[in-house]
Amino acid sequence: MAEANGAAPLLDGTKDYQPLRKKMYDLKKPHITEFPITWGNWYKHVDWLNTYFIIGVPLMGFIAAYWTPLHAYTAIFAFLYYFQTGLGITAGYHRLWSHTSYKATAPLRIYLAAVGAGAVEGSIRWWSRGHRAHHRYTDTEKDPYSVRKGLLYSHIGWMVMKQNPKRIGRTDISDLNEDPIVVWQHKHYIKSVLFMGVIFPMLFCGLGWGDWQGGFIYGGIIRIFVVQQATFCVNSLAHWLGDQPFDDRNSPRDHVITALVTLGEGYHNFHHEFPSDYRNAIQWWQYDPTKWSIWLWKQLGLAYDLKEFRQNEIEKGRVQQLQKKLDQKRATLDWGTPLEQLPVIHWDDFVAEAKNGKGLVAIAGVIHDVTDFIKDHPGGKALIGSAIGKDATAIFNGGVYLHSNAAHNLLSTMRVGVLRGGCEVEVWKRAQSENKDAIVVND
Amino acid sequence: MAEANGAAPLLDGTKDYQPLRKKMYDLKKPHITEFPITWGNWYKHVDWLNTYFIIGVPLMGFIAAYWTPLHAYTAIFAFLYYFQTGLGITAGYHRLWSHTSYKATAPLRIYLAAVGAGAVEGSIRWWSRGHRAHHRYTDTEKDPYSVRKGLLYSHIGWMVMKQNPKRIGRTDISDLNEDPIVVWQHKHYIKSVLFMGVIFPMLFCGLGWGDWQGGFIYGGIIRIFVVQQATFCVNSLAHWLGDQPFDDRNSPRDHVITALVTLGEGYHNFHHEFPSDYRNAIQWWQYDPTKWSIWLWKQLGLAYDLKEFRQNEIEKGRVQQLQKKLDQKRATLDWGTPLEQLPVIHWDDFVAEAKNGKGLVAIAGVIHDVTDFIKDHPGGKALIGSAIGKDATAIFNGGVYLHSNAAHNLLSTMRVGVLRGGCEVEVWKRAQSENKDAIVVND
Ligand code: HEM
Ligand code: HEM
Ligand SMILES: [Fe+2]
Ligand SMILES: [Fe+2]
Ligand SMILES: [Fe+2]
Ligand SMILES: [Fe+2]
Repeated sequence: MAEANGAAPLLDGTKDYQPLRKKMYDLKKPHITEFPITWGNWYKHVDWLNTYFIIGVPLMGFIAAYWTPLHAYTAIFAFLYYFQTGLGITAGYHRLWSHTSYKATAPLRIYLAAVGAGAVEGSIRWWSRGHRAHHRYTDTEKDPYSVRKGLLYSHIGWMVMKQNPKRIGRTDISDLNEDPIVVWQHKHYIKSVLFMGVIFPMLFCGLGWGDWQGGFIYGGIIRIFVVQQATFCVNSLAHWLGDQPFDDRNSPRDHVITALVTLGEGYHNFHHEFPSDYRNAIQWWQYDPTKWSIWLWKQLGLAYDLKEFRQNEIEKGRVQQLQKKLDQKRATLDWGTPLEQLPVIHWDDFVAEAKNGKGLVAIAGVIHDVTDFIKDHPGGKALIGSAIGKDATAIFNGGVYLHSNAAHNLLSTMRVGVLRGGCEVEVWKRAQSENKDAIVVND
Repeated sequence: MAEANGAAPLLDGTKDYQPLRKKMYDLKKPHITEFPITWGNWYKHVDWLNTYFIIGVPLMGFIAAYWTPLHAYTAIFAFLYYFQTGLGITAGYHRLWSHTSYKATAPLRIYLAAVGAGAVEGSIRWWSRGHRAHHRYTDTEKDPYSVRKGLLYSHIGWMVMKQNPKRIGRTDISDLNEDPIVVWQHKHYIKSVLFMGVIFPMLFCGLGWGDWQGGFIYGGIIRIFVVQQATFCVNSLAHWLGDQPFDDRNSPRDHVITALVTLGEGYHNFHHEFPSDYRNAIQWWQYDPTKWSIWLWKQLGLAYDLKEFRQNEIEKGRVQQLQKKLDQKRATLDWGTPLEQLPVIHWDDFVAEAKNGKGLVAIAGVIHDVTDFIKDHPGGKALIGSAIGKDATAIFNGGVYLHSNAAHNLLSTMRVGVLRGGCEVEVWKRAQSENKDAIVVND
């Protein structure tokens, strides 16, 4: 924050992203993304390095797998290593470094930085910076993997196609720059990836049971592909499939399928509302092995200061979202003509019209036309018929039968007028029948 | 309605129940139920005739079944006959005669009156009168099988124990008295029961495959027991187990288990709100074979005028009930101190306190104490720290970051005071900093 930065429009705690390895982009030269894609330049839009690692290498791996027998031990190892490198992303890159939702001792941080590198999704520093921008600018132009640009874009397109570095929202990563493990991993990223991504699995399977090739293909290449695709789902599937129990203004959604694929990162609507909660799933029966691992590390003394939002805050979000849905639903229903839009009718006109055969009933100062309902009345024709041309307020509300809520709703759809004098009609009626002066206020 | 009736307190379309067979109760003599149950008189409280038929006969049937081999055809017949006699109650006694939720041609009415008699639950006339009272006076003293008197009472107690005829609510059954099939069945009830309950199944299995004894025991006695217990569940289980999606002021509940047991009468919360709907289950995937049968009869020209409440009315009930639940939930949550209970604080005091180390932030005219939250702020310590002692309305609402709904909720729990001048604080601040006169209205 203290460093002045020419491009910063606001003193908002952010600065332009400073690559530590490559030389800085020349921000003045127009970027390729500023030109539309044509038949002549499309290959310049593709980020060939990323494409090679995300699509090319796995493709070669699948082809090579055809000639590589799958050893049972290697299969088990690949699965377990998939899980650990996945945790490197979910528990490490995501919940620890991007969101600081808990604190980890140095040994755990080293472990997570190592297995996280094995997932081959960029350095912690690069990943967290993008992820913080994703949270801060969700669904906007500044979101690096905005689902508004399409599901495929949010899944993989944002890496396969070159991105304008100026586009991505600015975030503060000063805390990451202060973590020596993060900085080390960033500076030695290629070495880390090579070792954790392929050499380590190859060594493990090779020294363990002599399956060097299987360790390379299954424990390395194919496992990387699976981990990548699984964790990419947090950016695509989790913004596209499922419910929005906490807020529906943005795209994040909760779905068990996403959770199953992403080691528990599928409760993403919750996560975007409560990003610094170390949990993504808040119910014990929901699948969130990342949360379970963090909790276990806490028991082992490796993790501490696990952050949780108060249940009160969580429930408030839920209540408000439900209210919103309910209000939307309510607006689609017919609740009867609002009273202020009804004509005002005099008692005598009401009685006269009822005598002329219209099925009019006065209840609570409102006149209802029940003509078409008489034959359907659950309490029988006779009873409802006995109320025509009369004030049935009392008999409708318990005098004869205490009608249900449903009956009151139905009644309001039959409104046709408001009685002059409203609820005081009975006083007025009595006065009239006793031939006294009826006080009618004409307003 | 025209007949005057001494005991009728209101001209409400009802009259005292007139038994057509037995001589009328002497309403002046005190009824046994007016005396408390003691060791000396308990046997007088028991309705021995009912007890014999509901408990005694089935008991003998179960004992006899021990010596009666179960023929496969008899088992199939008993099951099918169980279903048809069950329909006699649900589609006939209940939805047709008690609620007139559809109209049936004479052949169908005769069929339903016949199989209904085979279920041995009293005549249509007697049953419907009690059932209408049950709807009209649900859960009150006048409800013949009020669940408020206990689950066992509502299931079977109301038949096993003598009831005071004066207690049961009055209802209008003039329409039933006009149906010759209903009147015939009532007048020839004992004959109908004997024939449809036991003689017919015995004849069927006897003449069909020579299993007279099995027809009597399984097709007759035991099947009667099962039908009875199943349909009794509408009065007990359906007022005790399940959800209340439409209204929770009374006891009726919706549950799939009750529906499975009662041929679809388990959506009882719906049914009490919309009693003249020929459906109990409104979703196609819910189990309501009674509804399916009525629909089939309509296709066959046997039933017509199937009544349905408008979907709009049904949804309205659901919305209101959800709203009620939501309001209850909302009331249990902490939404922060209401503004009117907060002290009014002057801008200068606010700034001074913040300078003294209190983490005070002004947002939208309200002062918040964020001291304990700084270390937990998902956006980092630095950013939230930069707002202390300042008006952060704009930066909180998008200037730096457009906080989520959850963040706004959290913020309101941190309220500690209202700023003198409220939202106009900025105008006032500027005026102050420019050393002009600040207009402070002391009220
Ligand atoms: C004026 C418009 C009326 C409407 C819209 C209406 C509507 C309804 C509805 C929807 C029910 C079904 C049960 C319930 O929802 O509570 C019902 C039942 C009943 N109504 Fe009405 N009603 C009207 C007037 C009356 C009047 C004037 C009387 C009496 C004089 C009456 C007596 C009854 C009785 C006794 C029942 C109970 C029937 C039973 O559940 O067996 N209703 N009415
Ligand atoms: C004054 C009380 C504040 C509260 C209660 C608060 C609360 C929160 C919460 C709950 C989040 C999580 C994401 C969300 O819910 O939207 C958040 C994120 C954030 N806050 Fe605040 N905040 C406060 C003040 C500020 C201030 C003054 C700033 C800036 C100067 C700020 C900047 C941010 C940023 C940039 C994020 C995004 C972090 C990310 O998602 O990566 N906050 N804040
Ligand atoms: Fe997201
Ligand atoms: Fe996140
Ligand atoms: Fe009921
Ligand atoms: Fe009913």
